[in-house]
Amino acid sequence: MLEKFFNPDSVAIIGASRKEGKVGRVVLDNIREGFKGNIYPVNPGADEIDGVKCYPAITDTPPVDLAIIVVPARAVPSILDECGAKGVRNVVVISAGFKESGASELERECIEITKRHGIRMLGPNCLGFINTYSDLNASFSGSMAIKGNIGLASQSGALCTAILDWANIRGIGFSTFISLGNKADISENDIITVLSEDEKTKVILLYLEGIKNGREFMDIASVHKKPIVVVKAGRTRSGAKAVSSHTGTLAGSDAAYTSAFNQSGVIRAASLEEMFDYGLAFSCQEIPSDNGIAIVTNAGGAGVLAADACESLGIKIASFESKTIEILRSSLPDAASIYNPVDVLGDAHPDRYRSAINAVINDSNVNGIIVLASPQAMTDMKGIAEILVEADRASSKPILASLMGGEQTVEGEKILSMNHVPNYPFPERAARAMHAMIAYANITARVYTSPPDFDADRRSVEDILNRSRREGSRRFGVECLPILEKYGIPIADSMVVSTRDQAVKVADSIGYPVVIKVISSEISHKTDVGGVRTGIKDAQELRVVYEDMIQRIHRYMPGARIKGILIQKMLENGREVILGMNRDPQFGPMLMFGLGGISVEVLKDVTFRIAPITEKDAEDMIKEIRAYPMLLGIRGERPSDIGAVKETLLRFSKLCMDFPEITEIDVNPMLVFEHGCVAVDMRLTLEE
Amino acid sequence: MLEKFFNPDSVAIIGASRKEGKVGRVVLDNIREGFKGNIYPVNPGADEIDGVKCYPAITDTPPVDLAIIVVPARAVPSILDECGAKGVRNVVVISAGFKESGASELERECIEITKRHGIRMLGPNCLGFINTYSDLNASFSGSMAIKGNIGLASQSGALCTAILDWANIRGIGFSTFISLGNKADISENDIITVLSEDEKTKVILLYLEGIKNGREFMDIASVHKKPIVVVKAGRTRSGAKAVSSHTGTLAGSDAAYTSAFNQSGVIRAASLEEMFDYGLAFSCQEIPSDNGIAIVTNAGGAGVLAADACESLGIKIASFESKTIEILRSSLPDAASIYNPVDVLGDAHPDRYRSAINAVINDSNVNGIIVLASPQAMTDMKGIAEILVEADRASSKPILASLMGGEQTVEGEKILSMNHVPNYPFPERAARAMHAMIAYANITARVYTSPPDFDADRRSVEDILNRSRREGSRRFGVECLPILEKYGIPIADSMVVSTRDQAVKVADSIGYPVVIKVISSEISHKTDVGGVRTGIKDAQELRVVYEDMIQRIHRYMPGARIKGILIQKMLENGREVILGMNRDPQFGPMLMFGLGGISVEVLKDVTFRIAPITEKDAEDMIKEIRAYPMLLGIRGERPSDIGAVKETLLRFSKLCMDFPEITEIDVNPMLVFEHGCVAVDMRLTLEE
Repeated sequence: MLEKFFNPDSVAIIGASRKEGKVGRVVLDNIREGFKGNIYPVNPGADEIDGVKCYPAITDTPPVDLAIIVVPARAVPSILDECGAKGVRNVVVISAGFKESGASELERECIEITKRHGIRMLGPNCLGFINTYSDLNASFSGSMAIKGNIGLASQSGALCTAILDWANIRGIGFSTFISLGNKADISENDIITVLSEDEKTKVILLYLEGIKNGREFMDIASVHKKPIVVVKAGRTRSGAKAVSSHTGTLAGSDAAYTSAFNQSGVIRAASLEEMFDYGLAFSCQEIPSDNGIAIVTNAGGAGVLAADACESLGIKIASFESKTIEILRSSLPDAASIYNPVDVLGDAHPDRYRSAINAVINDSNVNGIIVLASPQAMTDMKGIAEILVEADRASSKPILASLMGGEQTVEGEKILSMNHVPNYPFPERAARAMHAMIAYANITARVYTSPPDFDADRRSVEDILNRSRREGSRRFGVECLPILEKYGIPIADSMVVSTRDQAVKVADSIGYPVVIKVISSEISHKTDVGGVRTGIKDAQELRVVYEDMIQRIHRYMPGARIKGILIQKMLENGREVILGMNRDPQFGPMLMFGLGGISVEVLKDVTFRIAPITEKDAEDMIKEIRAYPMLLGIRGERPSDIGAVKETLLRFSKLCMDFPEITEIDVNPMLVFEHGCVAVDMRLTLEE
Repeated sequence: MLEKFFNPDSVAIIGASRKEGKVGRVVLDNIREGFKGNIYPVNPGADEIDGVKCYPAITDTPPVDLAIIVVPARAVPSILDECGAKGVRNVVVISAGFKESGASELERECIEITKRHGIRMLGPNCLGFINTYSDLNASFSGSMAIKGNIGLASQSGALCTAILDWANIRGIGFSTFISLGNKADISENDIITVLSEDEKTKVILLYLEGIKNGREFMDIASVHKKPIVVVKAGRTRSGAKAVSSHTGTLAGSDAAYTSAFNQSGVIRAASLEEMFDYGLAFSCQEIPSDNGIAIVTNAGGAGVLAADACESLGIKIASFESKTIEILRSSLPDAASIYNPVDVLGDAHPDRYRSAINAVINDSNVNGIIVLASPQAMTDMKGIAEILVEADRASSKPILASLMGGEQTVEGEKILSMNHVPNYPFPERAARAMHAMIAYANITARVYTSPPDFDADRRSVEDILNRSRREGSRRFGVECLPILEKYGIPIADSMVVSTRDQAVKVADSIGYPVVIKVISSEISHKTDVGGVRTGIKDAQELRVVYEDMIQRIHRYMPGARIKGILIQKMLENGREVILGMNRDPQFGPMLMFGLGGISVEVLKDVTFRIAPITEKDAEDMIKEIRAYPMLLGIRGERPSDIGAVKETLLRFSKLCMDFPEITEIDVNPMLVFEHGCVAVDMRLTLEE
């Protein structure tokens, strides 16, 4: 739908200017520089600009596919209205002075007008965009991008200019280069959609400070067909503060971003440099079919650094097949290392590199190659580069190079760059790029399944929540356990009573030992005020303990209204786990799982997923916590029922999806046994 | 002592060659290129080389300070002998064909000869060295280094050439540039010593694959007066394997290296690029006096990236004093962000940068500044660079820059480089370099204290060990607890018995409940064979359990010789911790500390130090484990006696230092109470 937006046949520049250096002139000049379509400057005060016929208003031009607006902010709404009347469906608002400087109202007005007319809008407060394949520089950037197959969108215009300048000097090319500005309408979600369909684009790079619609982002990114690499700024407290003072974007929780990126197969880069290191690899090399790589080097030390980097990232240093080792043994000098990393030695001529590369590239355990070269006395860097190009052409396995040096590598680097073999100045960066490619291979191998569905008594949960709400409180405790039960999650046998005699009656029927817990909206940490008593062995003890609890609470929390006392079967020897949900502003319900006790409280050994989760997600959550071996059973202990935990997670996910009015749930503890698991206590918060 | 080595007045080249391109000729040409001292080529087959008088043997030349040897490996020993006879005290052996290719014997022979004559030797199998301040290129490197204040030594010659080529193109200068080769004599320890005294050197960079004498390295590095930045290759299993196939260096444990670097104040870089990023900062900026930095940017996004990088590294984004905020408010436009990061906006001219930098540099919460600039329409990169140089001259606080871009930053980069303001292409790299500087500030602030001494009954421990050794075994168990007691570490009340009646007698006197444990060299996991029984309440139970244990062991481990049964007071309610020691081949006794149970077994939540440790080390060990809050007491639990744990660690350290014949000890568990701690079980291994 946005194809014409980034591939227009005709462009109007509203606010085109005669005055050199003014944005309205720079944009016009940039467009005229290469664009072959029709160009219509609009300026009521000029008949022509630099020989191009000028129109007094957008209503006066022939029909246009795209309008670039560079008028002062306050004039933008009326211009948008004119565009709408004229039938212009695509606009770029370069003008600043909107939400980013406090004028949110003005921005909202623009959004309404574009909605009304069915206009798609890039910006406001953006640099514009570049489409190298239609030679269109629809931006006020000083320089045009080089043609290439990287599609890039950035939420920061200033970073756009820096990136473009940086990329040009390195010969890094783009298909489309987009400044997102305030994302009042067009956002990363539209960009991913349009670039996924764009045949000139092989990889999508995004610099984002926030995500406009997290849920939609995940849906769109999940079905993508190309690698998406994101730098998400504002991942720390300081960074998030800087983001919000910068663009007013609400950052949301970084754990939620991390989960969302993982779940939807988006690769996160830790820095701009890393984003380009990855982008370069994706833009010109095939995706490896699996983990397992070979390293070929003429410098032992460089091979060690690469091997270190690979292993610490989880890249397998392939074990060669015996035929490979034989070929290497017969074709390399005795002193060479014929195992992985292959050291062809400091005096290696290009043909020795060729023998080594040919041998390892045909090894079925090798799915990618990192080739290193240090400029030594006999080293012919140009020749080595040519060998790499030759090998790259002959094989579909990815080849990444690290020609290390300066003056002496320049020629080789040029050959690699012209022939689309990525080169990195240091071996560790080549290893990281290879790691991103292997990560993407795993992503493409994923089978996306739908979250499973379960029978659930939704209606009863609604009733419970409505009843609770009517009581005028937002926070509830253990008395909400039946909500879980309605979704098929086993809960401890329990009942709420309001007298001592009822308590004894209930306990007699459940069977001793029992636990009793106070229910009160005013008491959020029951244990601290003696509101939980465990291991009650018989009716006699129960009477004493019940009375004592009521008195203590009256004494220490005189303001607390006791809604009742919960009598619960006491369960022993289960392993404690915790399930939680927190609603993230960007992505919705974020589920948490971890072992209870010290693992959660002290070690924060927990894992997150955005709901709804699939069976695979649930399995992964359980396996991801560091304390997972505890669930498997260590030191001869019996294993916990992981299947039951998995099913509980899936049912919990469904519950959280079904009731958006629940903003927080903690099931803590849930006890897991050798067979089955049981929720024992919980807290729940409803939205205000 | 090595000053003359790297600063000779006269140099002989033994093996100088007439033939262009041969190493013996390249070295001669390189030395002649700039060196002003006397040069004596030695070659029995030539009268002169390229107009320089040639000598038939080193014995024929005038006295020389340094001899460079480039003859075939097998001829090296006799040449070294001649050098010794001649009185040459410094030699560089460039020749390869020694330990690295299996000829360890030949290398040992060379070492003996140099020892005998008091010769210091660099290499063999090295590139040589460069001293830029005496214009001496005593290497066969194709290019000379630029003058600067970085001292570098590399264990890989191939990386030397790559680094030099890389550095030259970037204008990065060196005082001394040393290829270490096989380190048969001169090692990193000598280099640190000599470069620490060298007034031309401000920072020492090391690429190492192993360390020759770990203990000495720590001693030397600890008293250094300059930042030392190390890339230690071979930190992973694959890397270590590659190291050993590369240079035959035994890698040792990476945890030991990490501890050794930390304890001796050496900064470890994760990659060569990082080493240079750090080196650049140290080479031309002052060390910040404390944590806390300011970020100044003309691009909000870049500021966010820098803030993210800083916070995730633990760099404080300083809160400005109110006077600073006032100055910023009055001197910057309304839309600017006057909090940290300071955003001077995209249209900022250099003078706006000046106002911002001047304001924040005078803030007492600011100890360093990172300045970012993106090339936007109005940006004068050159002007901004000049402002940075001006600010750098006026202040002793470190300033790191990140001019982001390509073409448009070239001029600015040049100005910064010429004026010694470090520039990084991306903000994250500037942040990492700042982090290294702050880490070094903390290192210099450390007060190095000696490990405390304690009274200890060393003689008794010797007796126990000798007795144990006489029994012909290397592995011992709980019966060794008295060893700890002799070093003042409290142990559980216990005694070894060999009959049931003795057992009852002992238990009666210790007091019930008791624990009994079998003692047998053949049984290393007592619990698995029923060799530990706890909670024995009285004599009657003890008789039954004792008999049962003996029978079980006879049945399940018929080959196990029972040396006795240990009767121990049963202690309850203590928190389990574990103390361990393993002897690292490079660094000696490496101590381990952690909480017992799941923390050690599953979560590997342990911390290491090389012994001997100081009081500060012991405190840090306890605080470093993630489960530390457990010792402080969570959820209203009573705190554990951390002082007692600390003293135990220090006494344990002394024990490990005093008895090098002990290769391994595990004290597991030690129980910590609110007051005091007690060792309950242990294992000990003696060297073979």
